[in-house]
Amino acid sequence: MKKACILLAIICTSVLWSQEKEVKIVFDVTSADEATHQSAIRHIKLMSEAYPDSEFEMVMYSKAMNMVLADKSTVAADIEELAENANVSFKICAGTMKRYGTEKEQLVKGVEVVPDGIIEIVTKQSEGWGYIKEAHQ
Amino acid sequence: MKKACILLAIICTSVLWSQEKEVKIVFDVTSADEATHQSAIRHIKLMSEAYPDSEFEMVMYSKAMNMVLADKSTVAADIEELAENANVSFKICAGTMKRYGTEKEQLVKGVEVVPDGIIEIVTKQSEGWGYIKEAHQ
Amino acid sequence: MKKACILLAIICTSVLWSQEKEVKIVFDVTSADEATHQSAIRHIKLMSEAYPDSEFEMVMYSKAMNMVLADKSTVAADIEELAENANVSFKICAGTMKRYGTEKEQLVKGVEVVPDGIIEIVTKQSEGWGYIKEAHQ
Repeated sequence: MKKACILLAIICTSVLWSQEKEVKIVFDVTSADEATHQSAIRHIKLMSEAYPDSEFEMVMYSKAMNMVLADKSTVAADIEELAENANVSFKICAGTMKRYGTEKEQLVKGVEVVPDGIIEIVTKQSEGWGYIKEAHQ
Repeated sequence: MKKACILLAIICTSVLWSQEKEVKIVFDVTSADEATHQSAIRHIKLMSEAYPDSEFEMVMYSKAMNMVLADKSTVAADIEELAENANVSFKICAGTMKRYGTEKEQLVKGVEVVPDGIIEIVTKQSEGWGYIKEAHQ
Repeated sequence: MKKACILLAIICTSVLWSQEKEVKIVFDVTSADEATHQSAIRHIKLMSEAYPDSEFEMVMYSKAMNMVLADKSTVAADIEELAENANVSFKICAGTMKRYGTEKEQLVKGVEVVPDGIIEIVTKQSEGWGYIKEAHQ
């Protein structure tokens, strides 16, 4: 009985384990640097094309405000197009918007607002998502 | 019996799972850039105010030495004040201190020394803490 | 019986848990900055010396191409020497190589090619490896 118990516990854990192995990635962008915005978009674009059944989320906060402003972003068209995919999402931190005095209407189409960028990222991590910090210096 | 076993294993795992969902965040700071120090402090300050029952730790190593030097840090007062909270801690890597010839007396009050900054961070990760790299380029 | 079951499930989970506590670290390098290359190498060198029974992997992609080019890297000798250790490996993203028109022959000796740098990193994360982003701004 004990052996069966151990086995069952291992099986249960293995099932949860294998679920974690799905490709789910949250990208963290805090840079004001347009070169970083462009790299970040290239990463999520290539990966969502290569893994159409997986999930990708990009979270912008801190100094990355301009990346999702319709009239300032150098990657606005890419974000709008990518956000149409069910497995790709772009999230901006409400706290960052407030700090920059940004209104929802100014955002690139398809960008969603989350209450807190950091909480959004660590929640995804705790759900087994992979984490990639986008930074290039 | 087997069903009960599976159920119990799932419950056990779920309990551990939900414990991981607590907000516990380790921040990684390696930059010499004062703007990055200030962003990092803003993040930990806002979060520890918003989540007073959660835990936050900021680990400095590599090029971030000045951030915790009493006579050089631009965020010394904030660190000292925040470190008084039971749920907030600041850790500097002993290896980094050695490399810069820093003595413990030179540190901002409240900053603790850990043997190795990277080991500190990955240990927290393995205990289910969320991870945020502070970097802005 | 139920108690035994719970206990066994906890033991099983604890065993898996403690396995996660082994020091296994994947380092993420995307910078073109030679100072970042040198910091990254110092980190993996010191850690692999201090923890000879642990595993370390450094993944280069995006703007870090030069770090592993034999005729351009400022850390080529270190990489070649470190890669001789069974517990240290250096991986370059095949997609990045293609983007820069790099041939395998141009790589520093000991550097291995992986199909996708980001997938390599998040796979390690999902297997319980710690994650450190190398970035210094």
